[in-house]
This record gives sequence, structure tokens and C-alpha cells, in this order.
Amino acid sequence: MNRDPAERPEVGDLTGEEIAKHNSSESCWVIVNGKAYDVTEFLPEHPGGQKIILKYAGKDATEEYSPVHPPDTLDKYLPREKHLGAVNMTTVEQETKEESPEEKARQERIKAMPKLEVCYNLMDFEAVARHVMKKTAWAYYSSAADDEITMRENHSAFHKIWFRPKVLVDVENIDMSTTMLGTKVDIPFYVTATALGKLGNPEGEVVLTRGAHKHNVIQMIPTLASCSFDEICDERKGDQVQWLQLYVNKDREITKKIVQHAEARGIKGLFITVDAPQLGRREKDMRTKFDDTGSNVQNTNNDNVDRSQGAARAISSFIDPALSWKDIPWFQSITKMPILLKGVQRVEDVLKAIEYGCDGVVLSNHGGRQLDTARSGIEILAEVMPILRERGLQDKIEIYIDGGIRRATDIIKALCLGAKGVGIGRPFLFAMSAYGLPGVDRAMQLLKDEMVMNMRLIGAPTVADLTPDMLDIGSARSHYVNQPEDTLALRAYDALITPNDMLKPRL
Amino acid sequence: MNRDPAERPEVGDLTGEEIAKHNSSESCWVIVNGKAYDVTEFLPEHPGGQKIILKYAGKDATEEYSPVHPPDTLDKYLPREKHLGAVNMTTVEQETKEESPEEKARQERIKAMPKLEVCYNLMDFEAVARHVMKKTAWAYYSSAADDEITMRENHSAFHKIWFRPKVLVDVENIDMSTTMLGTKVDIPFYVTATALGKLGNPEGEVVLTRGAHKHNVIQMIPTLASCSFDEICDERKGDQVQWLQLYVNKDREITKKIVQHAEARGIKGLFITVDAPQLGRREKDMRTKFDDTGSNVQNTNNDNVDRSQGAARAISSFIDPALSWKDIPWFQSITKMPILLKGVQRVEDVLKAIEYGCDGVVLSNHGGRQLDTARSGIEILAEVMPILRERGLQDKIEIYIDGGIRRATDIIKALCLGAKGVGIGRPFLFAMSAYGLPGVDRAMQLLKDEMVMNMRLIGAPTVADLTPDMLDIGSARSHYVNQPEDTLALRAYDALITPNDMLKPRL
Amino acid sequence: MNRDPAERPEVGDLTGEEIAKHNSSESCWVIVNGKAYDVTEFLPEHPGGQKIILKYAGKDATEEYSPVHPPDTLDKYLPREKHLGAVNMTTVEQETKEESPEEKARQERIKAMPKLEVCYNLMDFEAVARHVMKKTAWAYYSSAADDEITMRENHSAFHKIWFRPKVLVDVENIDMSTTMLGTKVDIPFYVTATALGKLGNPEGEVVLTRGAHKHNVIQMIPTLASCSFDEICDERKGDQVQWLQLYVNKDREITKKIVQHAEARGIKGLFITVDAPQLGRREKDMRTKFDDTGSNVQNTNNDNVDRSQGAARAISSFIDPALSWKDIPWFQSITKMPILLKGVQRVEDVLKAIEYGCDGVVLSNHGGRQLDTARSGIEILAEVMPILRERGLQDKIEIYIDGGIRRATDIIKALCLGAKGVGIGRPFLFAMSAYGLPGVDRAMQLLKDEMVMNMRLIGAPTVADLTPDMLDIGSARSHYVNQPEDTLALRAYDALITPNDMLKPRL
Amino acid sequence: MNRDPAERPEVGDLTGEEIAKHNSSESCWVIVNGKAYDVTEFLPEHPGGQKIILKYAGKDATEEYSPVHPPDTLDKYLPREKHLGAVNMTTVEQETKEESPEEKARQERIKAMPKLEVCYNLMDFEAVARHVMKKTAWAYYSSAADDEITMRENHSAFHKIWFRPKVLVDVENIDMSTTMLGTKVDIPFYVTATALGKLGNPEGEVVLTRGAHKHNVIQMIPTLASCSFDEICDERKGDQVQWLQLYVNKDREITKKIVQHAEARGIKGLFITVDAPQLGRREKDMRTKFDDTGSNVQNTNNDNVDRSQGAARAISSFIDPALSWKDIPWFQSITKMPILLKGVQRVEDVLKAIEYGCDGVVLSNHGGRQLDTARSGIEILAEVMPILRERGLQDKIEIYIDGGIRRATDIIKALCLGAKGVGIGRPFLFAMSAYGLPGVDRAMQLLKDEMVMNMRLIGAPTVADLTPDMLDIGSARSHYVNQPEDTLALRAYDALITPNDMLKPRL
Repeated sequence: MNRDPAERPEVGDLTGEEIAKHNSSESCWVIVNGKAYDVTEFLPEHPGGQKIILKYAGKDATEEYSPVHPPDTLDKYLPREKHLGAVNMTTVEQETKEESPEEKARQERIKAMPKLEVCYNLMDFEAVARHVMKKTAWAYYSSAADDEITMRENHSAFHKIWFRPKVLVDVENIDMSTTMLGTKVDIPFYVTATALGKLGNPEGEVVLTRGAHKHNVIQMIPTLASCSFDEICDERKGDQVQWLQLYVNKDREITKKIVQHAEARGIKGLFITVDAPQLGRREKDMRTKFDDTGSNVQNTNNDNVDRSQGAARAISSFIDPALSWKDIPWFQSITKMPILLKGVQRVEDVLKAIEYGCDGVVLSNHGGRQLDTARSGIEILAEVMPILRERGLQDKIEIYIDGGIRRATDIIKALCLGAKGVGIGRPFLFAMSAYGLPGVDRAMQLLKDEMVMNMRLIGAPTVADLTPDMLDIGSARSHYVNQPEDTLALRAYDALITPNDMLKPRL
Repeated sequence: MNRDPAERPEVGDLTGEEIAKHNSSESCWVIVNGKAYDVTEFLPEHPGGQKIILKYAGKDATEEYSPVHPPDTLDKYLPREKHLGAVNMTTVEQETKEESPEEKARQERIKAMPKLEVCYNLMDFEAVARHVMKKTAWAYYSSAADDEITMRENHSAFHKIWFRPKVLVDVENIDMSTTMLGTKVDIPFYVTATALGKLGNPEGEVVLTRGAHKHNVIQMIPTLASCSFDEICDERKGDQVQWLQLYVNKDREITKKIVQHAEARGIKGLFITVDAPQLGRREKDMRTKFDDTGSNVQNTNNDNVDRSQGAARAISSFIDPALSWKDIPWFQSITKMPILLKGVQRVEDVLKAIEYGCDGVVLSNHGGRQLDTARSGIEILAEVMPILRERGLQDKIEIYIDGGIRRATDIIKALCLGAKGVGIGRPFLFAMSAYGLPGVDRAMQLLKDEMVMNMRLIGAPTVADLTPDMLDIGSARSHYVNQPEDTLALRAYDALITPNDMLKPRL
Repeated sequence: MNRDPAERPEVGDLTGEEIAKHNSSESCWVIVNGKAYDVTEFLPEHPGGQKIILKYAGKDATEEYSPVHPPDTLDKYLPREKHLGAVNMTTVEQETKEESPEEKARQERIKAMPKLEVCYNLMDFEAVARHVMKKTAWAYYSSAADDEITMRENHSAFHKIWFRPKVLVDVENIDMSTTMLGTKVDIPFYVTATALGKLGNPEGEVVLTRGAHKHNVIQMIPTLASCSFDEICDERKGDQVQWLQLYVNKDREITKKIVQHAEARGIKGLFITVDAPQLGRREKDMRTKFDDTGSNVQNTNNDNVDRSQGAARAISSFIDPALSWKDIPWFQSITKMPILLKGVQRVEDVLKAIEYGCDGVVLSNHGGRQLDTARSGIEILAEVMPILRERGLQDKIEIYIDGGIRRATDIIKALCLGAKGVGIGRPFLFAMSAYGLPGVDRAMQLLKDEMVMNMRLIGAPTVADLTPDMLDIGSARSHYVNQPEDTLALRAYDALITPNDMLKPRL
Repeated sequence: MNRDPAERPEVGDLTGEEIAKHNSSESCWVIVNGKAYDVTEFLPEHPGGQKIILKYAGKDATEEYSPVHPPDTLDKYLPREKHLGAVNMTTVEQETKEESPEEKARQERIKAMPKLEVCYNLMDFEAVARHVMKKTAWAYYSSAADDEITMRENHSAFHKIWFRPKVLVDVENIDMSTTMLGTKVDIPFYVTATALGKLGNPEGEVVLTRGAHKHNVIQMIPTLASCSFDEICDERKGDQVQWLQLYVNKDREITKKIVQHAEARGIKGLFITVDAPQLGRREKDMRTKFDDTGSNVQNTNNDNVDRSQGAARAISSFIDPALSWKDIPWFQSITKMPILLKGVQRVEDVLKAIEYGCDGVVLSNHGGRQLDTARSGIEILAEVMPILRERGLQDKIEIYIDGGIRRATDIIKALCLGAKGVGIGRPFLFAMSAYGLPGVDRAMQLLKDEMVMNMRLIGAPTVADLTPDMLDIGSARSHYVNQPEDTLALRAYDALITPNDMLKPRL
């Protein structure tokens, strides 16, 4: 299925009235993108539970369906005979949803949205997106595991590392290009894989493809994209390079098909996710989901898939928790693409990856979305690189990190330590969600501007000049937990008073 | 006495009118659970002071009496001849207590209580319980010693320890069972002893017994339970296992009777509390108590037990502060149960426990309720285990910890360091207080769900796979106190402004 | 002069009308405690500046005069012929001061003052005093140097030190008595010297004398007391022991007189203040002072003493900044009292004090009122004691600390490290200011109660059992300054939501 | 041009009406200080972009022009034939700017401005200036790079260093004078270079010249001053000493002219800025700028200079990013002034500066305005000095630091570590912006008062007595990032309640 307006589904024969009769678990029809499907038999198999389908039994499910299923899903998984054909959409009763007060407020906020030009850094996009995205979409993107400690640590870990810049270096010409798995890129970051792009933008991941092309950086295509894999490949321009992030299916034949199809479509790197044998509990996401359908779940029922687990849990049940080192040779046997492990978190596993002949690793904790109080990528990097150098292994493998990167200074710190490049995910998602392609474009441009500036200020005209001595990492691996405060004492005394307090506040 | 409705006290002969005459320290009768007692001579001996009894002289004291006394108390301690017999309760004037505005507000909050399903972690139960419990009950459960620094440290100490997870381990099948003192349990935690369960739930500790049975974990019965020891034993089902927490009485004969009775009733472990020669000052509890009876204590009187010390102090005067190492052999002589010391706080004492032939220790600071700025169990564990391993003593004794455990990741950290299991107390109390047995059930299930997930994410299919190298404990034993802030400087400057500030706040 | 009502000044001959004529710098008479004085010639010599005197020219100055001058000041410093004699106070016009809204509010707060019984720890007295004291008095007592970093550090430094308690020690009988300079005391603290007691309580320092007697602890008499030295000595009962804190006068003859008079009056220890060659700038105090007389200082004038420096600066100009080690032998030559140095702040100076034959030192930063970012006494103690022990000098000298002590646990930490005792100042001042002698009594009793409890909990039946191994001082000498927060990032994201947020707040 | 009223521009022949015709990019005349200029051809070359000029085409631009251009700019850079001559200003229509509500509020705040006497420390001036300065001016002065982490670190870094004061040193006479590059100064700080002084005060940098003279300290003249270099030199009195801060121009001839002119005018030190090959991104400044002209930039246009980069970026395009060590000998060849490098940030570069024969370095991160998470000057000093001493190089070069200094204790810490002196910038700018010369005077006097006091309190009668052993620098080089807080847990529990909470708040 293709969203090109020129190929919009033809007006069909099926009427809304007819379809509306099939509104129960005995007979359940739904409309998706102007076509009707009989999903009665599929109900018990739906990874997201049957309740969510039954909510749309006899109705148009397109809006809810779209962000969480690539358009080719029904073609792939529903037998042909269940495809009932095109619907005459004029006969389908449009549900006039009462706009909730919350949604109205959101629409107001969208109208008052700051101009793109006042986003001066990547965090600004997050600040805007938080206000203009749907609550559930924001919850899915922004949430992380348990208490979200690792998610917050990911960013603040960079602040444990300080610069020792060189002065009086000729920095007139800054060249921040580098190569990643042999591909020349303009700046040492890539767009890392993030799921369900259409939650933030109706066009989904192809927007990122366009942004990556404009700035000559690599895009890693997610397994759990809202667009289909082929749509994202099709969006590629010129010699643009893409990688594939892979969740390994329990059914290795499916995995094999995906991998070999990817290679055939010109994908230049296979990043096997190894930190997610099961997708994490993200309570913020779960809470939102619950609220969302709160009124429907009062009564007990037989739906034994707990939808309150959030979107990601529902759609990830295929992932194989038995994936292990012994699978690596098999991957090497089915593809010639470079193989990298995404989500490695200790030096012992980096050494093992070298031993197994992997081409690279991404030191990552999955954006803080899996194991809480797992360490940040930048900290693991500070553990890994000295040991690799000690053993002369630093060139045997390409090391990437992701998680928490918001500033060019973050990128520079990773490269000084020895990373080949960094992956950036959420910030581009939020830029896309708030401002679409122009947002992604500006976000990438801001990073480039910061990067030129900061390479000048650290005294490094090229990426090769970024060396470990440019950092002070004395506190990089420490974790400081504040002594819980002595509330009594702090509340007994006055704060100091300044002349400030004699003046009216400035807004 | 037994709360089974079938055995409700028969209608008696004594009338409220008769009893009401005995309303002074000269002659003081009280009604408890439908029976009248002459407590005149007992007044000066009441550990909680006579004032609290005199408040109910000539009246029904059941509601105040019940949570702080096991039902067999009067039978045990009041001579038979003071048992006046059953009361015709229809003749007893019901005090129509004016519901206070505070109580009304609480009742409103109870009506608006979130559904159990929105409790996604153990802390959620605490958040709910705080709002729906009686103020005094909440104060008793939640309070801790002095500035409550140790209580807060107990939880945050876990955040000083970070994970070094393994990837590409086959984690399809997770087995989180283990054995504790020879008992196979489904997950490595036990329900630790906490006092006065009926403050939170009218049924008291037996609710926890039922929860523990359902999830196949061990319950440790507290000395200061609201239910009687036998009631809690009676609640056991099948081959369910219970332990006993023991406060040692100054009168060793009483202690001997308790211990031997426990062994006879099938208790599988004796945990002697060693961190409480005197029960701690808990100011939050004391303040609440004071408020509670504020209007009555204006006038000086001869009651020399200071009730403002809080509930626990009052009921614990029997505890022997002279208990010492020399008592251990005596315990070993009176019982064959395994003997463990609960509340050990330094490696020297663990070594001594091994020397004295103890079967285990619980590294614990009594939930922060005793000595403030005592270290957390997890920190003591990080001190103890390397020394035990160095001396080859790690298998001579079972090491448990308790305090601050809220997440499966906390349990995993303790096991990686070398603990056999962990005790969890307050969270189940709060789950029980807010939601009864279903709350306890869900709390335990949440821990199991988290545990499966997190053992997968750390790459450990069984408890035996949890090893010290899976942790980064570089900061585990450090205590960081913030430099008190430079208030002047911080208040002179502006905070940065984000596009956020241009938008209306999202609720 | 003596406040005994029996000795009230007799009705005199001088009339208010007569005195009111002498209301200028040409002829300036003032009334103090019912007697008139001609201070015209004294005006330029007044350490606090002449403006403050001229404000009361021709009037009754008693209220302002009293807290900052011991009653014998005029007798000592004003020539006999300037003493004009008793005034017929009925003829003196009473200034009906319009009560300011602030003062009215304070009077309201005093009426609503919490009962003494709800003060459960020393900090509670500070919390109450802050609300019921006069603003200027609170500012004087509570203020400290510069940004008050050291003042706050003094208390929080104790939280860097954690306990390693012993269990199974027989702690039935706790003996917390010790000796200080040969005097047996009930508990190892003394009431340290603090200036201007009448700012908080009209009776001044004698209230502390009475409290110290009741609890058998030593009181250190301050040079800058509101009461006269002799009044405070006179208040002594039985064999009560007092020490003297000494600011050394530029005129050594005056100092000699003070020291020898003190010895004659039975003072048992001479504590020479060495951390205050000049009294510190306390901005909170200065700001309050400025406000106070704001309307009067608009016009320039010849008063070259800057009163905006606060009370302490004004009254301390006599202190000799040239005091040095070479003066120590001189002190030893004029008195047989033990000589101790108060305000030592580094181990080198402790060693020097031993060399010079001093009997003790107080490791102190003057309550944070002198040099900001000076270290806390407890931290200096952690530096000093290991070096003394290494050199076998630990018994050559008695080491005390003061500053920030609020809990018995703080005292215990100091004693474990090796201090002989600790000085406590502000807490008793605040207890006295809020509640008078009963406040001081309760404050001391609370410390005793905490001390018994905590010695039990740490496993030390006597002061001699408090040893260094009972502490974990790994973080004691570290100073952690928070990385200034990344405001953008923190403000972009949502806080997590708990079920808490679904309920109405509990007050 | 000279602002002396006696030399006000004569009444000219040109009329406002005539000039107003030239109001487009085709023909663009502007009035500056009563004279008209034809800037049509200059438009594309204007470093700040043409849009800002066109805003004033045909009008009087003096108010906007003045702070960002020294008065001799037009004479220097605009050909003589474009100088159109004096304007009859009575014929120029005065734009009656509607005073914005924000400006009105600011004027109100100015009226309520606290008296100078209540500024008790340098931070107080910042607190006042923040309220009374124009928003754009405040933003320019107060802003820093990226997240402003380094700016905040600059000040708080001093709080990682604690004092070890000596007692019993004769500190009657304090001499805090020292020499800097051979010049005797009264106190070891100099007024460091800061740009665009007229944003804060219409007279600009000469106010600082006067203040520096009064207190006998050195002023460093900034390249980007609002006053002309010669004006600032002319303001010098007696043997007052000035230094020059130099941004090196891409055109070395211009640089040579500047340097040699400076030497000719008697400048005693040349401080070459080496930390700013490009001026930093200061988002606070950029955001303000954007707001300011928000309504004008809606439409796209050909102005390819992005004014939203803020003032500094616009005016700094001449700075040469190719400046390198090889330029140092050239500087040495064109001047005999001592040559110092301002902005050195690592010991390796200090050693190199010695090697190249530089006379000194300023350890500085440009007030946090360049590279964020660069280390503070005081921390770099703690790295540098031990290595210099180890190699016997400590006297080969003069070491200065700047950044974050607000207290005399900060100065003392720098000197104890080994700095020759410190530069102070923003505090004097803010003092000048809020209170003019009296503000600068008081700020300097406050520092002197603090310095006398604190040298006494640390036990150092002269600058030579300030030695490294007077500091505890154990934590000086550490960077502590708080463990991101466990929001759930912290929000579930109650804070402790104090008697405080029972009283009405004191304002």
C-alpha cells in the first residue's frame, strides 16, 4: 500500500452499513485505508490483544492502526481471502468524535507554537514537541524503563567529562567529515533506529530519510518502523546510505528473509539489537495507555493480553529471547553486510564481539528504555577504549555509542574517547513531530553549526585531531547520589536575602 | 479469640450502664471485643501508660485496642478473675464520634482511590496508602529515626550501584527460584517482619500470610504483630513456610516459651533482632501522637509514661537491652531452629556470628527506624562479602539484607553481591493498607514481572548466574553531601528560557 | 547592677523634663535603667558610633542599651562624675511606639506559639525562635559570614560520617558521663560562648547558667555577654563549673585584669579565641541593621563608624589583631587556669599548641561567622586525630569541637573520632529565646534522651567505648559541589506521574 | 567624536526632511550623533547585516548605533565623501516611541532601585542590574555558551576549595598590594576586558577607567569596547596603568597598527585572546535578539547575515581563526610590550607559552562564553602550578586567572595556589550598569574590605604569606553530577513536619 495520492484506493462496493453488522468477536470486520478486512479468526493472534481490534469492529480503524503497523502488514499476515475489498467510504458513517478538552487545549498550543527559528538547540525541539504531540505519542517516545534513571543519566553523564582544549591551533578550516563502515559522512553522527515514527508525524520515518540525505548522514532503519522497510528504502536518493536495525525473530526463516532482503535492497550495515530480549516496562507509556481506554476496561473479560503494558510490549512479542553468541556465525553465513551488535554494555562483550568477528558494536542502553541503572554509553566507552588500546585492538572493530546526545560537545567527547561516531534518535523524532522535515533539517544544521564552533574551540581542525588528552575524565565513571537532605535543618533557617528581593520580579 | 464471624462473642449479661460506672482509676473497667475486663490493678503496669486506658474507662476500647494488641493478650496477661464476661452490646452507648474534617477528607480520598491496576510498581502503593490511611497509622508505618536520613539512604543506596549486563545470553527460560534456609521459594525475597498490621488493615498480618502463600515466598512473623502468633500460624496453607522475628524479653522464661512454641508450630527459622536494644525515636510518629490527644494532656498528671514517644516505644518496654553474644549459646540450647541475627551492621559482627555458629545474618538497619546515619544493608553487604570470600567463609552462613527494596533491580543487585535473598516490609504493608490482599498479590506479581524482565536484561537465566562482575560498585560505599548552595549567586541570575516558556503549561 | 526586684533603683530627683533638654551632641544625657548619665564627652569614643546614642539623647535608652552592654559597663567606663543619679521615672514621657505591622504579626505568632512539648529535637527550637524573635535579634544570632557556606557545612558535615554500630553488646546501663579539664560532667557537651544573650531573652546568659546547672554541664562565659561577668558567676550553684571565653584586648592590662578576676572567681578554664582577629562580616545582620535605621542615615554626617556593619562589629573594635603565639607564655605567666585555644583550624596549629604547653584546643570556625569556606570542626578533627595518634600525642591535650551539632549522633561521631567533648551554642540560645529556661531544660534533656538511645544503638555502654572503628569516615573530608544543572534538559521533560497525582493533596 | 557637551555637534544645514528621502537600500542615509552619512554602498559589508541599518534608513540611528560602535568607527571605515555633514536636529522628527509595557515596568523598577549602600557584595550588583538593565543588554552581559554550565561552574568551582587558616599570626597590619607585570597595585585584581560597555552605561568603559584609578588597579582595555581605544587611554590619570586585550584580525596589518598604537599610547601589557577563534553561541543573547526584531523578520529576504546570532557574533567576524603558535614570534617582533596569552586551558599550553617566551598567561574560559564544559580557571590553576613547581618554572611566567570571582576569598584561593592576580569583569560591568561610577567604586571597596578581613582570618599579613598549605584542594578537580533523582520515591513520601509548619510564614 502506498500513500501517494495518485494511488488512493478506488471507490469500492462495500458499504459502511454492511460492514457495521460485523461488529463482534463472532464476526469482526474492520476498515483500514479504505479497504475492508475480516479479522475474526485473527483476533486471538493479534499481538496487541483483541480488545483494541474489537473497539473498531465494524468501523474504520485507520487512524489507530496506521502508526503501529507498516502499510504492508495486512498483505503480509492476513490471508488473501480475508481481504474483502474496497469500501465506498462515503457510506461509512464518520464518527464525529467530541473533541476532548485536552485535545482542544493541544490544538490551541499548536496554534501558538513557537517559530522554528527560536529552536536554538536539540532540546528546544523536545520542549516544543512535549506540548504539541498527542499525549500517548509523547508518552511512547519520551518514556523509559522503571524510574527513568538511566534515561536521565544518559544525558547528564556527558557533564562528568570536561574539556582540556588546545589553543593557538590553526582552526580556520574545519573538516568534521569521517567514515562509518566505509561510508563518508559529513559529520560523525547517524540517525539511529526509533520505532513508530507515525505517532509523531503522519509520514513517518521517510521524513528522517530525507533529512539524512540533505545532511549526508546515515539513517538506521528500525524493525518497528511505521513505514514499511521498502518505503524507507524507496525514499533514498543518490548514493545515500542506510543501515538496518534488527530485532531477531523466533522464526529464523523470517529473520533470514528480512536480512537477505535488506542486503538486496542495498543496506550497508546490519545492527543486531542485543539489549532487548524482551522490550522494557515503561511506566509512563503504560499509564497513558491505561488512561486512554480507561472506561472500557472496567469489566473483566477474556482478553488475556494486558494492553496496559504499552505499545512497544504489544508489538514486540516476536523477539527471540534465546538469541545468543552461537547465532552470530549463522548471521555471518547468510549475509555479507557488516554485522554490528547494538546494545553492548561491558568490555568483556566487546572483546567477545571482536573474537566472533563482528564489525562493530554500539555501546548503548537502548535510550534508557530497557534496564534501569544500566550505565550510559559514554561511560562504557570510557571503560572499553583503554582496554582495547592496551591490547592493540582499537582498530579491529568500530565502536559507536548512542543515548543522551544533545550537543556537538557530546559528540566531540565521544570521539575524543575513541568512538567512530554516535547515534542520535529521540531529538530528530521530536524535531519531526513538532516541525516535520524543516525541523529535522534545522536540528541537523544546528548540530553542524555547534560542531564547527566547538571543534574550533577545542583546537581540532579534523576529526583525527580529537584525542583523549583533550578531556578530563577523572569523574567519568563515578555515580554520585546526594545524601538525602536533612529536611529539618534546611527548613528551620532563612535563605539569604538579596536586593533582588526588594524589587518586583521580572517576568 | 478468633475473628471468625461464626464465633462472635455471645450476647452477655453485663450492661453498658453497669460498666460505665467503673470509669476512673479507682475502678476501671473496659470493653474489648464484646467482653468486659477489670483493669484497675493493671493500670500502673500498662506499658503504654495508664492515660490511654483511662480514656476508655467504662467504655468500649476495642477500636483503639485492637491494632496494638494481639487478641490473646488479655487472656495471657490479665488474671482470669478480672475477666468479667460477655457484655450485652446493645446496651452500650455507641459514641457517635463527630467525624473530623480531616477524616471526612480522607473518606473522600478513599472514594476517589485509583484502581489497583494503575499501581505499576511498589512505590505506587505507598503513594496511595499515604492518602487513604489514617494519619496515625501512616505516621507509624512511614516514620523513621531522627532526620530519617538512613531511611531515605536505604532506597537511594541502590542507585549508587550500576549494572554491567551481559548480552547474547539465552534468556528464554528464566528461573528465579532459590532456597532460603533449605526452603525452595519462587523468587528471592521474603516478607519481613513489621509491627502492628491492623493499623493498616483490620485483618492484620494474616493478609500477608495469604499473599506469601500465593506467591510461594516465606513470611517472617513479627513479635509485635496485631494478630496473635497462633492466628498467623493457623493461616498457613499446605507446606507454606514461616519464620519468626524475635524481640528478646528481659524474662528469658517468656522468651524460651515463645521460641519453643514457635518450633512446635513448625517455624523454620528464628531471627533474633539485635539492632533494637531500645526502640528508636521516630519523630513523625511522636508528633502525630501528640496531635492526637493534644487536648487531653494540658494538665499535668502522674502518668509517668510519656505517651508522646509513639506507639512502638510504649509496647516495647519488655525488650532486653542486656542481650549479648553470651546469650547465643543459650538460644542454641533451647531450639533446633536455625538461628539468625537480624540487624547486623558491620563485617566484624558477621565474622563473630559465624564464630558463634549462627546460621545467618540479616544486614539491616531496621528500616531506618533505629540509628540515624547508620549505613544501608546493601552498602554493608558490599563491605562484608569481599572479606568473607577472601577468607573462604561465604558459604558458612546465609546473608540477607533488608531496607529500601522497591524494584527487582534492587533484589538483583543484592544477589549479585552475594546475598541469599532480601526482606521486603513496608511496600507490602502499604499494598495491604490500601488494597488488602489484592494489593499484596499485585505487589508481589509486579516484582515477579520486573524480575523476569530484568534477569533477561542483565543476561542471567538463573539466580546462580547473578555474579559480582555484573555490577559497577565503584561508588557503592561513598556518601556525598552537597556543598550547601551559594544562595546569593544562584538567585542573582536568570534561569535559561526555552520555547517551553512560550507555551501554556500542559497539566 | 542587679535585676533583683528588691534592689530596683530608688525613685530619684531628676525629671524627664530636665533630661530632655540635653538632647544634642553639645550636651547629651541619657537614661539607662532609671539613672541618668552625661555621655557628651564619651560620644566620639563609643565603639558603636555616636549616632545610635544621639537617637536617645535626652531620652530613656534602656531597651536598646540593655542587650548590648553588660549592666556594669557604665560603672566601668564612664567617670563617676558623669553619673547624674536616679531619675523620677514617672516624669519621663513614655514614648508610645506605634507598633509596626511586622511587630504586630510577630506578637500574633507568639500567641500561636507551639507548646514546648512539640519540640522534639534541637532544630525545632530554631524553627520556633525564627518566628517569635525580633527580626534583628534573629538576624544577629542566625547570621554567618559571607554566603554562609561554612555555617551550613558545619551541620551537614556530620552527614558525611556514617555509623558502623556493634550489636549484641550489653547496653542495659548507659553511662554517658565524662570529664572535661578534670570536671566530671553528665554528658559530653558544654554550653559554648555566644554573645548578646539579652537579644533573645531579657534575663540573658544567666538562664543558660541555670540550665547548665540542672543538667550538670559546663557553661563557657562569653566576653561579649549581655549580663556582666560577675552576674553570670553569681548565678552559679553548688560546685557548678564555668569556663571563660576571652577576646584579647589591645590593652593587655585590661586583659590581665579580666583573666585574674576570672581565676579569682573560680573559673576553671580560659578559652582564648584565636579565630577572630577581627569580627566577621555577616551580611544578614548588616542588612537588618540597615533597614532598621534606614530613614535616619539619608544625610551624610561625621559619624565615621559604619553602623551598617552590624552589632558585633561595633562592639568588638577592642580585639587585638596582633595577638600571636608569642603571647601564650605571657598568659601562662598571669594565670594558673588551664589555657585553651578556641578556633584552631589545622593540624599544624594543634601541634604548635602542644609545643606551647596549651591544655587544649577547640577545633572551630566560630559557628561559620568568620571565614567562609573554612572547614567544619568535625572535618578538622578527622584530619587532626590520626596525626596525633601517629605521634603519640593524643593524650597531651584535650580536643574539643563546636559548630553545627544538633543531634546526639553528632556528639557521638565527635567522640568516636577522639574529641573530649563538644560545644553547643546557637541551639540553646534559640531554646532560651523561644521558651526561656524550660526551653533550655528541654533542649538539654532531649540531647540526653537521644544520647542514651544512640549509645545503646551503636553498642557503647560508656564514653570510653566510643572508638574510631564505629565510624565510616571515607567521605568525611570531601567537598562535593553539584555540577550546575543543565536547566534546558531538565525543563524539557516531564516528571513521572504517580497515582499520587490522581488524588487530592493531603495537607 | 567626543561626548563632552562643550563639543556638541554644531547646528548643521542638513534637514530631517531631506535625509528622510534616503530611506531604502537604493539610497540609504542615516544620522549618527547629529551628523548624516551615506551608507548605501557600505550596506552589504556591514558585519552586523544590512537589515539593522535599513531599519534606520533616513532616520536617526544614534541610540542603536552607539553601544556597539566606538565613536571613531565611521571616521575610520567610511570614506570621507560619504560623510554628509552636520544635521539641523530640530528638523528631525523625533520618533515618539510608544513605551512598551516591559519598558514601563523597567522604569518602575529603576525608581524603586535599592540604595547603593545595601549592596554588600559583588553579587548584589548583579541582582540589581538584572532588574534595571534593558533586557537585551542584560542578556548580552549575562549570557554564556550552550547550557551555561561552564559559566556556573566558574563560580562554584571556588567552593570545592576550602581553607586551612593559620591562627595566632600578627595580622594587625595587612598589606594586600602586589605587582603585576612590574606595576604595583593595591590589591591583586585587575579589571578584565569586557565588550560593549555602553549597553550598560551611556559613558561606557571610561567609567571603569575612573574606578580603576581610584583603587589603583589595572584596567585591561577590550578590543570590542564601546568607547574608542583612545578615549579610554585619554581617561587615564597620573601613572595609571592599562593593558590591552587583543582579538587578532585576519589582516595582520590592522593588528600591527593596533598593537603599535597601543604601545605608543603607553599600554603596559598585550593580552592576546586565544580562546576565541570564533565567538561563542550564547543562546540567551540570541533569543533576546530574536524577540527584539521578531515582527520584522517574518518575510524572507536577502540579508544573509543571521542577526539572530546575537550582538557579539555580528561584530566579531574579523577575528582570525588561523591564529597559531607560529604568530607569537611575529608579535614579539612588532612590540616590546609584555605578551600574554588570554584563555589558556591546559598545562601543556602553559609550558608551550614559556617555551615561546611569553610573559604570562591568563587561565580562562572567557567567562563561560565560549566552550561549554570547559574547566574553570581556578581548576586549571590547580593542575598547572604543581607541574610548574616540579619543573622549577613557576617564576618564568606570570599566571593569572579570571572567571567567577565574586569574593575576596576567591582571590585569596587563587593566590594561595600560585596566581599572580585575578581578572574581574562582569561584576564591575553590572555595578556600572546599575549605579555608574559610585557602583564601581563601592564594588571595589567591598572587595578591599573583604580582602583585609579575610587575609586576617586566614593568618596572612601580606600577599607573600598566601601559600598552598592554606588550602584543602582535595576536591578541587572533581566534577560531581547528581544521580538523576528517583522521582517516584521522593514524591511518594511526606517531608518531615516541623513546628515551623504550625506558624504563619514570616515574609
